Amino acid sequence: MRLHHIKAHAFHAPRLGEVQEFTDVLISLDETGTIVAVTEGADHPDALVLPAGQILIPGFVDLHVHAPQYPQLGSALDLPLEDWLQHYTFPLEARYADLDFARTVYDTLIADMLALGTTSALHFATIHVPATNLLAEICLSRGQRAVIGKVAMDDPDACPDFYRDASATDAIDGTRAVIDHIHAIAGKDGLVAPAITPRFIPSCTDECLHGLGKLAAETGVRVQSHISESDWQHGFVRARTGRSDAESFAHYGLLREYSVFAHGTHLSASDMELLRDHGAGVAHCAASNAYFAGAVFPLRRALDIGLNTGLGTDISGGPNPSIFEAARMTVAASRIRARGVDADIAADARGTAEPAIDMATAFHLATRGGAQALGLPVGAFEVGMKFDAMAIDTLRAEGTIRPFGATGLRLLEKVLHTASRPNIVVVWTDGVQRVGS
Amino acid sequence: MRLHHIKAHAFHAPRLGEVQEFTDVLISLDETGTIVAVTEGADHPDALVLPAGQILIPGFVDLHVHAPQYPQLGSALDLPLEDWLQHYTFPLEARYADLDFARTVYDTLIADMLALGTTSALHFATIHVPATNLLAEICLSRGQRAVIGKVAMDDPDACPDFYRDASATDAIDGTRAVIDHIHAIAGKDGLVAPAITPRFIPSCTDECLHGLGKLAAETGVRVQSHISESDWQHGFVRARTGRSDAESFAHYGLLREYSVFAHGTHLSASDMELLRDHGAGVAHCAASNAYFAGAVFPLRRALDIGLNTGLGTDISGGPNPSIFEAARMTVAASRIRARGVDADIAADARGTAEPAIDMATAFHLATRGGAQALGLPVGAFEVGMKFDAMAIDTLRAEGTIRPFGATGLRLLEKVLHTASRPNIVVVWTDGVQRVGS
Repeated sequence: MRLHHIKAHAFHAPRLGEVQEFTDVLISLDETGTIVAVTEGADHPDALVLPAGQILIPGFVDLHVHAPQYPQLGSALDLPLEDWLQHYTFPLEARYADLDFARTVYDTLIADMLALGTTSALHFATIHVPATNLLAEICLSRGQRAVIGKVAMDDPDACPDFYRDASATDAIDGTRAVIDHIHAIAGKDGLVAPAITPRFIPSCTDECLHGLGKLAAETGVRVQSHISESDWQHGFVRARTGRSDAESFAHYGLLREYSVFAHGTHLSASDMELLRDHGAGVAHCAASNAYFAGAVFPLRRALDIGLNTGLGTDISGGPNPSIFEAARMTVAASRIRARGVDADIAADARGTAEPAIDMATAFHLATRGGAQALGLPVGAFEVGMKFDAMAIDTLRAEGTIRPFGATGLRLLEKVLHTASRPNIVVVWTDGVQRVGS
Repeated sequence: MRLHHIKAHAFHAPRLGEVQEFTDVLISLDETGTIVAVTEGADHPDALVLPAGQILIPGFVDLHVHAPQYPQLGSALDLPLEDWLQHYTFPLEARYADLDFARTVYDTLIADMLALGTTSALHFATIHVPATNLLAEICLSRGQRAVIGKVAMDDPDACPDFYRDASATDAIDGTRAVIDHIHAIAGKDGLVAPAITPRFIPSCTDECLHGLGKLAAETGVRVQSHISESDWQHGFVRARTGRSDAESFAHYGLLREYSVFAHGTHLSASDMELLRDHGAGVAHCAASNAYFAGAVFPLRRALDIGLNTGLGTDISGGPNPSIFEAARMTVAASRIRARGVDADIAADARGTAEPAIDMATAFHLATRGGAQALGLPVGAFEVGMKFDAMAIDTLRAEGTIRPFGATGLRLLEKVLHTASRPNIVVVWTDGVQRVGS
C-alpha cells in the first residue's frame, strides 16, 4: 500500500540538539515515496489520518548489524571478544554456506527489525557471496532500506580454516560480485546498496585491505568495518601496522565519505578528526560495548567535533535487536561515563564529567544522525527525503507506554523509554507500508 | 483459577550461583498455593501441561517501586535528584489526596506489573493514609504479593508545605493506621503486608525517625527507605547526624531483619556489614542509579559478603517498569563498573576490576534474591514455597524471543535478554492465575 498523504501528531529531530513537534501535520509524498510537502495544520481529502493517541516518528537507522548472528542473540556474552568470535561466532557464520539456513534466519531477522521500527540498516553478512546476495533480496522484498556487505576476512593467522576467504583475491572478487548483484537488483540509488566490508583489520591481510581500498575508489561504494573496539584489537593493529585503526583505514584507502565504523571506544581525538575529515562516521553500540569494548564510547566528544554518529544494536554482540533499547542504553552508558562508577573515588574525579547525552539527542542519533552517517535521504520529515516512518500507538493496552496525559517532549521521552513492539502499529519505507494490518 | 498441578519446562535460581533447569517437571500445590511436590519426570492426570516452546520461571520481585510516580515514568530524568523531587515528584505525589486519581493510577500500575511478570513488589505509596490503604486493596484484589508503606516525611526544612506530614506524630500515627488496615484486610501473613517507610533521612525529623523505630520494634513489621543514594544525600546525612546512613538507621532502630533499603551506591564496606548483620538488604536499581546516584552500586562486593540483594525498577527514578529491563541494566552496569568507562586510562586502572555479574546471577537476584531480602516464601520452585510464577511463550510471533533451537542456559539467557510483554502469557501468585486468557 503506497501512501500519498498522512495527517499525524509527529516528532522528528532533524538536527543535533533540535527536536520538533508537529501537533497536526500533513505530509505529502510523490509516487516514489519522496516527501514533497510538510504543512502544519493543512488537510487533504485522501489523507490517512492517524487516530488520536498515535504519533508518527521517523524510522530508526541501525548502523551495525551482523545479520547472520541473529540465532545467537542474547546468549554467550560472557567471553572475551576473541574467544567469542572463535568459539561461537565464526562456527555460526560458517553455516551460511547453506542457503536454506540463510533464508530462514534472514527472513525472520528483517521481518523482526521492521516490526521494531528499524527501517534502515547497515548489515554485515558472511563471507559467502550467494547468502549475501540473498540477504539483499530479502531486504528488497520486505522493504528494509539496507546497506549490505559480504564480509572479507582472509588472514590465515587470524581466521579459522573453516571460515575464511581462501585468498585476498577471493575476498576482493567476492566483494565485487556482491556489489554487481546488488546494483543489478536494486539499481544504483535503490532501497538496497552494497558496502565493502573488511571484518576488521586483524582478520585481513594487507593485500586484501589494499585491494578493497582500490575497489572502493573504483566503485565509489561505502565501506564498513570495526574500529578501535577493545584494548586487544586496538593494540593488535598498532603492533602490526605501527598505526592506529583510523590511520590504517586511511592508509588502505578505506576511510571514505558515508563509510561507517563500529564501536570506536578507543579512538583518540586525532583519530576522530581523521574520520570526520574523510566524511566517515561511527556506529555507537552502547550495549555491545558493555560486553566487549572495555570502555564507553566518548560520544559527547564525537558530537562536539562534528563526527557523524548513529546508533547500532550490534546484533549479536549486543543482546537486543531494538533501537529503542539501543537508545536507552546510550543514555544510561553516557550518564555512567560522565559521573563514573566507583563511589570510593571523589565525585569530581570519578567520571569524565562531560555533559551526558539525553534522550532527545539519542532520538536524533537513532534517526537522522544514523541516516546522515550513511548519506541516506531519510530520518526526518523534510521535503526531498524519502518517507521512512513508524506510527506508534501510545494507548495500546498490550503495549507498554502509559502517557497519563503527557504532551510534547515529555510524551516523546515516555515513548522512547517505554515503547515495545506492540506499540509499533505501522511501519513504512519509501512511503510503502511494510508492517501493520 | 486455582492451579493444583503443572507440568513444564522450568528454570529457577534458588541460590546465588546456581541455575537449575527442569526439562519436564511436575509441580503440585495445596489449596493455599503452597508447593507440596516438585518431581522431575512425574505425571498427574489433572496437570496443566505447558505447551512446547513455553517455559516456566518464578515470578519477579521488584524491591523498589514508587507506585504514585507511575504517571511520570520515563520522563524528566535529566535533573539532579533534589530538583527532580521538588519540581516533579512531590507535586505529583501530592495529588494522591484524590482517591479517584489514586485508583486510576494504582489499578493501571498493578495490572501492568503483573503483566510484566512482577509477582511481588515493595511499594512506597504517598503520605496519604486513604490512598495507601487503597493501594493495598488493589494489590490484594489483583493478586500482587506486596509490601506497602505510607511514606513518612515531616521535616519542614526539607519537605514542601504542600506535601509533608504535619508533624512527627502525624507521620507515626498514619503509619500505624496503614499497618492496622493492611493487617485487617490481609491477615498477618497474607498476600499484602505493611512496611514502615521513612522516605529518607533528609526528609524526616529525628523525632519522626525515633518514633518509627519504636513502632518497628513494637509491631515487628518491615522497614524500607533509601540509603546512601547520591553524593548529595550521603553527605547531607553525615553532616546532620555525624553518622553514615546505615549507622543512622541502626541508631533510630530502623535497621531490622527483612528491611530493604534502596540504592546504596555510596555504602562503605562497614555500612554493608552493618546491614548484613541486622538482616537487612539492598534494592539494586541499576537504571535509576544511572540517572541519580552518580555511581554504580558495588553489587559484587555486596554479594561477596552475603548481603541480601535484589533488583528494583525504582519506578519512576528508573524509566522502565520491567524487571527484565532491570536485569539487563544490572548486567550492563556491572560490566561497565568492572571495566571502566574511559579508554584514555590504562585498562588495568580503568574500572574496579571486580568480576562482573552475569545474567544467571541477575536472574537469581530478580527472583529468589529479592524474595530472600524481604523474607518472602517465593522465588524458587521448592517445597514449602508459594507458587508465584510466569509462563513464557518463547515462540510467540508478536513477542521478541527467537530461540533458534537454543537449549538450557543459552535459552534462558535469550529469554532474559530479549523477552517482552507479549511473551509473558500466564502469571500466577499463590497458585492462582492473575494474568492470561
